[in-house]
Amino acid sequence: MGPTPADLKAWLADHGGRGSVRRYHGLDYARLADDWERLPRGSVCFPSGRVVPGYPRIGRMLALRAGLAAHFDAPVWVEEKLDGYNVRILREQGRTLALTRGGFVCPFTTHRLADLMPAAVFDDHPELVLCAEVAGPESPYQIGPVPGVAQDVALFVFDVMGANGAYWDAPDKNALCQAYALPRAPCFGRFRLDQLAELEAVIRRLDAEGREGVVCKQDGAPERRAKYATAAASLQHIRTSAAQLLELPAQFFVERILRLVLFEEERGRALAGRSGALGHALLDGLAEAVAQFRREGRVALRYRCRVNDPSVADELLAHLEKTSGHEVRIRHHALERVGDQWRLTFDRIPAHINGLLRQLLGPQLVYD
Amino acid sequence: MGPTPADLKAWLADHGGRGSVRRYHGLDYARLADDWERLPRGSVCFPSGRVVPGYPRIGRMLALRAGLAAHFDAPVWVEEKLDGYNVRILREQGRTLALTRGGFVCPFTTHRLADLMPAAVFDDHPELVLCAEVAGPESPYQIGPVPGVAQDVALFVFDVMGANGAYWDAPDKNALCQAYALPRAPCFGRFRLDQLAELEAVIRRLDAEGREGVVCKQDGAPERRAKYATAAASLQHIRTSAAQLLELPAQFFVERILRLVLFEEERGRALAGRSGALGHALLDGLAEAVAQFRREGRVALRYRCRVNDPSVADELLAHLEKTSGHEVRIRHHALERVGDQWRLTFDRIPAHINGLLRQLLGPQLVYD
Repeated sequence: MGPTPADLKAWLADHGGRGSVRRYHGLDYARLADDWERLPRGSVCFPSGRVVPGYPRIGRMLALRAGLAAHFDAPVWVEEKLDGYNVRILREQGRTLALTRGGFVCPFTTHRLADLMPAAVFDDHPELVLCAEVAGPESPYQIGPVPGVAQDVALFVFDVMGANGAYWDAPDKNALCQAYALPRAPCFGRFRLDQLAELEAVIRRLDAEGREGVVCKQDGAPERRAKYATAAASLQHIRTSAAQLLELPAQFFVERILRLVLFEEERGRALAGRSGALGHALLDGLAEAVAQFRREGRVALRYRCRVNDPSVADELLAHLEKTSGHEVRIRHHALERVGDQWRLTFDRIPAHINGLLRQLLGPQLVYD
Repeated sequence: MGPTPADLKAWLADHGGRGSVRRYHGLDYARLADDWERLPRGSVCFPSGRVVPGYPRIGRMLALRAGLAAHFDAPVWVEEKLDGYNVRILREQGRTLALTRGGFVCPFTTHRLADLMPAAVFDDHPELVLCAEVAGPESPYQIGPVPGVAQDVALFVFDVMGANGAYWDAPDKNALCQAYALPRAPCFGRFRLDQLAELEAVIRRLDAEGREGVVCKQDGAPERRAKYATAAASLQHIRTSAAQLLELPAQFFVERILRLVLFEEERGRALAGRSGALGHALLDGLAEAVAQFRREGRVALRYRCRVNDPSVADELLAHLEKTSGHEVRIRHHALERVGDQWRLTFDRIPAHINGLLRQLLGPQLVYD
């Protein structure tokens, strides 16, 4: 006998108490809002008693050469780090679900799963958890282009977790993805720690293509892992977040500028080559915010995503309203039929930049 | 009979209570740390009973054309806004003192006053308060170059306040400055509100020369005033504050980028012309912080100033330690003889960027 819904409250209380018990289409679950002992934030417990650990944070290397030497002692598998949102996909009570990083069942991803990957793997291996990035220009969690995904979103499996909670090593993971036609995050292969030139070529290509970076996982010890991002990723984050400069901590921007400095420095390149792009990212982002404020009366970050059923749009908006901080409002914008699907457009309205622009663009003098 | 030092405490308590009673070389005074009714923050009361109002904040126009039309209804005198620190200079108990914006007697400026301006004006007009900007590349409150001040600091009088607390109109102020050889903030003359082309030429020249901007004061009503800054000023602030990005509110940077956007927009110029400069300002500032962290083990904002007597260096450092926020530490660096003077070098150590760089440049992975 697994726990009943009442047991989920007890489980939550026994695991630090920070989190919530929620229901998705009749399926109850509890989620942890904070790390608790060895369970990361976003861990979920189902009435069956099954516990799905949260996806752990991956440490970042700021220097590739020094980072590899410091953190690995065997060859590494190098996979592309996609810039999207992280989901854990699993089968529970006969249903295939997608959990967000925070441990919520994502109504959008769950609803769109059949479009994004074949689920047959769970018929044979119902105990597995697939960890994947969902990325694309039409995502409810992300704005801005994603290289290689021209429209909608795509899903990229990058980890397979067994029933014991351990991650599979790359060869087994690749075999599973191949056997079940699972879309796989690109893998650039296995690199010895002295193959820096080869790895460097991968990094430079990703940077030139505007891609996010890589995750290195040690051969035979896939829990030993570290990520490394391109300068292009830092610039792209700054560009798409310019209108949220006041919502995000200053550290968000400073870290990305510092990453850019360190990236160019390690490659012996002059910073001047990036200064125009950095200035553009900030100026264009804020000039567009000003233009939108004048045009529409407010700054709104406009998200688009596709759904197969209009009722999912409501579910998604309700989910986003519940999970967004109180300083960002969600506002439905449009729902249009596009072929067999519906395109939902909604806005996230950042409070601070709107307050500042009301003050700066108004007729009164500004006392700063 | 004026108040005694005990009366200063009573005065402070009667004026909101926020502030302090202090002593400068045997002279007691009380200062207000907040606005209180019609007295601005930084207002000071002396034992004589004399109250010197704080210097009021000047409202900023974000658009020149709309701002002039909205805030003035007669011609304006247009003066250069220097980028330095604001002092009020006065004679009290036979001594000529300089008060900072916050209402402290500034030991540096007071000590250097004889080098910066002739004080004879107070022999004839002991009731006057001169409001001035002190600016230069060797300032205890400021780093970075100041156009037109090649070394040390210079003083620029921009307002004269009579015993009644009212500001003098430009012609009287100019006459006083001329009669007593007082160094004057440059005045570009009197502009009718329809002389926008002439005023625009002034603004463009200031911007091209990297100067801060202007303050407009209405002819015959000098308390009606508004400031307008160049794009160059915004860029310069960002450049010199890059290492303090984490200490300052994000709004500091966002506002300056927005000012830059609005400045170029009003002039019909493409933002692309400024993007390289903005990117440089941020990248160079943070790259220099990284280089200094590696070289010296920490990021320190290095200030220089000249004193005529080594004891003033100690007084100044004690003053800065008392008046700096607790997140910035002051650290003496060097005191060297230079001709008849001494050059004091000291550091302000911003805590957050040092914490972040220790984390980012260290050997461990970064969990962000």
